[in-house]
Amino acid sequence: MPISISASFAFETAEPIDILLQFEAAAIPEQRLISARTTMSDADHCARVSAGDDIGERIWLRVDGRFEVDYASEVELDRLLSPVSSLKRVPPHELPAEAVKYLFDSRYCQADRMQSFVHDEFGGLTGGAQIMAMHDWISSNFTYAPGSSNASTTAVDSFIERRGVCRDYAHVMVTLARASAVPARFVSCFAPQVTPQDFHAVAEVFLSDPTTPGGGAWYLIDATNMANAEDIVKIGVGRDAADVSFMTSFGAADFQCKEVAVTQS
Amino acid sequence: MPISISASFAFETAEPIDILLQFEAAAIPEQRLISARTTMSDADHCARVSAGDDIGERIWLRVDGRFEVDYASEVELDRLLSPVSSLKRVPPHELPAEAVKYLFDSRYCQADRMQSFVHDEFGGLTGGAQIMAMHDWISSNFTYAPGSSNASTTAVDSFIERRGVCRDYAHVMVTLARASAVPARFVSCFAPQVTPQDFHAVAEVFLSDPTTPGGGAWYLIDATNMANAEDIVKIGVGRDAADVSFMTSFGAADFQCKEVAVTQS
Amino acid sequence: MPISISASFAFETAEPIDILLQFEAAAIPEQRLISARTTMSDADHCARVSAGDDIGERIWLRVDGRFEVDYASEVELDRLLSPVSSLKRVPPHELPAEAVKYLFDSRYCQADRMQSFVHDEFGGLTGGAQIMAMHDWISSNFTYAPGSSNASTTAVDSFIERRGVCRDYAHVMVTLARASAVPARFVSCFAPQVTPQDFHAVAEVFLSDPTTPGGGAWYLIDATNMANAEDIVKIGVGRDAADVSFMTSFGAADFQCKEVAVTQS
Amino acid sequence: MPISISASFAFETAEPIDILLQFEAAAIPEQRLISARTTMSDADHCARVSAGDDIGERIWLRVDGRFEVDYASEVELDRLLSPVSSLKRVPPHELPAEAVKYLFDSRYCQADRMQSFVHDEFGGLTGGAQIMAMHDWISSNFTYAPGSSNASTTAVDSFIERRGVCRDYAHVMVTLARASAVPARFVSCFAPQVTPQDFHAVAEVFLSDPTTPGGGAWYLIDATNMANAEDIVKIGVGRDAADVSFMTSFGAADFQCKEVAVTQS
Repeated sequence: MPISISASFAFETAEPIDILLQFEAAAIPEQRLISARTTMSDADHCARVSAGDDIGERIWLRVDGRFEVDYASEVELDRLLSPVSSLKRVPPHELPAEAVKYLFDSRYCQADRMQSFVHDEFGGLTGGAQIMAMHDWISSNFTYAPGSSNASTTAVDSFIERRGVCRDYAHVMVTLARASAVPARFVSCFAPQVTPQDFHAVAEVFLSDPTTPGGGAWYLIDATNMANAEDIVKIGVGRDAADVSFMTSFGAADFQCKEVAVTQS
Repeated sequence: MPISISASFAFETAEPIDILLQFEAAAIPEQRLISARTTMSDADHCARVSAGDDIGERIWLRVDGRFEVDYASEVELDRLLSPVSSLKRVPPHELPAEAVKYLFDSRYCQADRMQSFVHDEFGGLTGGAQIMAMHDWISSNFTYAPGSSNASTTAVDSFIERRGVCRDYAHVMVTLARASAVPARFVSCFAPQVTPQDFHAVAEVFLSDPTTPGGGAWYLIDATNMANAEDIVKIGVGRDAADVSFMTSFGAADFQCKEVAVTQS
Repeated sequence: MPISISASFAFETAEPIDILLQFEAAAIPEQRLISARTTMSDADHCARVSAGDDIGERIWLRVDGRFEVDYASEVELDRLLSPVSSLKRVPPHELPAEAVKYLFDSRYCQADRMQSFVHDEFGGLTGGAQIMAMHDWISSNFTYAPGSSNASTTAVDSFIERRGVCRDYAHVMVTLARASAVPARFVSCFAPQVTPQDFHAVAEVFLSDPTTPGGGAWYLIDATNMANAEDIVKIGVGRDAADVSFMTSFGAADFQCKEVAVTQS
Repeated sequence: MPISISASFAFETAEPIDILLQFEAAAIPEQRLISARTTMSDADHCARVSAGDDIGERIWLRVDGRFEVDYASEVELDRLLSPVSSLKRVPPHELPAEAVKYLFDSRYCQADRMQSFVHDEFGGLTGGAQIMAMHDWISSNFTYAPGSSNASTTAVDSFIERRGVCRDYAHVMVTLARASAVPARFVSCFAPQVTPQDFHAVAEVFLSDPTTPGGGAWYLIDATNMANAEDIVKIGVGRDAADVSFMTSFGAADFQCKEVAVTQS
């Protein structure tokens, strides 16, 4: 059951500015691109650079005027799918180099400020059971409220206000996990059941499956419950939303429209 | 003129906990280790993992009780030494993949909040001249005041309070640079003229030297003026202090003493 | 030269909610109301209560549906008009009871966080000369930028971002003064040269005029430079904007229009 | 059953500075001072001014060197003692002038940021029942942890960290009440069961007793559960701790000792 994705957006600049985009399904072992097509307006400069953890690519542009992006792909997923609650904690001292950085605080995920809450509320659990309890706590205490947050909202803000959108749910999930010394990263993605259809964001935690060899792997978890690990198509990963915005502009750009459609055949 | 470094510290834990250390001079092309010796107490577990940007190593420990670290090395530096004021800005759209992540905000460096100030105060300059103006602004407006900040102090806090220690000066320098779209990272290091002798921290910015081929490189800059690029021995680099603490403990550890001595023969 | 004021605004509620208004020129010794007329839609409940420091009145309403307010007055000012720079500091230990509370921090004026900056930047001055230096520092470092702030912006935020509207300029002025132990309050007001015409806000500091008997008085100061002490008509005073909003609604109200006109004959 | 109070403290200054004290049981109708004695070192200047809401007095001092304060009193309470859960909400539009200011946000009580949480968690209740639910939520979710907070900790910080001391419990209680449009103030006080014995802080909310005539009154509530309304001796009231610190120094003072003893005969 491949997943079909289409996305298009446009923006306009009044003068030449630099733009960084990351919006395409990443070509990685766990997700095979059956087909992919990216059409963009002409730019003064266009270069691709690999993105964080070598998952996906970023596109550098030098744009002057109106710019349109049109993207379509078909993706087949082949992902490790263990139930999160069955997973075990990897003791910090056994974590590999690539997971260590995801223990640390980041711009929107101030895990140091959540340690006492996490200790009091989830301290009796560990590993996947603890992560699921965090997921359930967010699901039952938060209200999904488009417009209630913005680009500067942090996990701490969301924790106080108890509402937000997928970005905020993912930030809180990442923050609670890190506060318990579980590496956690932010994943921008496509997923078919997201309503309304848009770019989506979820969290990913580093845990180990006792039935599989090897020291640990990344497992997806969505506190909004809109996406499942088996139908999430990753675009990119990072410490938080600051790292994987689908569009970062270095100067003023007037965003004009966006359309995303994700379907599972 | 090699640089001689010695550092020792000790701590004690009441129960087994995980500890992450990063305190050794990094073995990288720009700094050759003539000699290096690390002596540590026995631990239940000890493993080395490579650190951020493959600069230096982190040591994972499982510690129960008192633990002592003793380190000595001799380092010869061979570093690119262009005067910062002569360097040119690399347009964002020409930045290589490894520099891109250092454009983004991090836990202690909220560059998004400094953009209007940076535009107003430094907007007339660019490249190395702009970075030097930021350096001079910090130097003349800040007071070096041990005890005035702590582990949770951010660049924004320091900007308001106009005082701090090397960590805070480096955070503000990194933040101002990023707010102007110059990639900037935080460097933990040793340097001979630091008073009192201790681990030190400086900033590093990604600029290009018009007299050298290639698209850009990292250049050290110390807003405290205690260290110079030609005598800084790097330990590690990261987005901010959260990434390169010399000791991160996952549980309670009683820190007992620390001694650092750095001399240039 | 009396000042003529007219103000009108309207809002609509979907269900009955409580509303608190404070928008009329205060009847106080320093400003004589030659005439005043307030016309409002019918409300389920309408009561007047005296406002902070007995300056002006607040109006409690119970509103269901559309509500219109229309106000006009003519005011003659007779205000103490000493040049601020000639005024002296009142030592804190000589401050009267009514000034003491204006030494303390408030929601939007976190003077505790500005003490080191104020000490470094303005520590060599005192009294009115110091207040004028603060005024000049704000005037020359801030940009008046409608839309750059909102109802949750604090003095610390404005200090970082170096921009704002009259509310923000007044908050920063109040905060710097308090950080130097000068009582300072926030004044909502009308003034003829405000562009575009709207409700205005300025600061007021407690200092003493050496040529006048008595221990101290309140003196107006406007860091935006749009209003002068001799043509400011006070509506109300408080610790900061939280205390003197012209409209506070306890429930959702849809604000529909506002028109203010202030002229000096 | 009168309450006996003794309190003593001392501090030292290196140069003449202004000090503001508020540490005595207030002489107000609800608490009769059977006896009271305040002994203080000589000061260059000493003046009493009335404190907030005319509850208690502040003492202004000009101190140079060591200063000692010794206080003893015996107080008989005669306080309105309705069970909080039986009290009714006073609709905002019926609030008297003196209660209105306690609806607004203050330095440590940012009620605007708690509105969505309060709506979600306590929105189904009103009046005293709602206040008791807030009290119970704090009691069961917070840990009393001396040393976990400091003078700059706000209600929002405490809400995130879920721990604090009496000051923090009172700030959160005040903040939750205000977020639901119930006027709430901060009360510094003495109480016999406080452990360890020290100055104490509780909240006070403005509600009405349906069995008593009149529109509303202030009712004490202590989320730490260490004090009861019938044995609390008020020192002063304010918007939050910024208003009623027992000692505010305008310059450096070295605090040396403090002893408080409160007993009920």
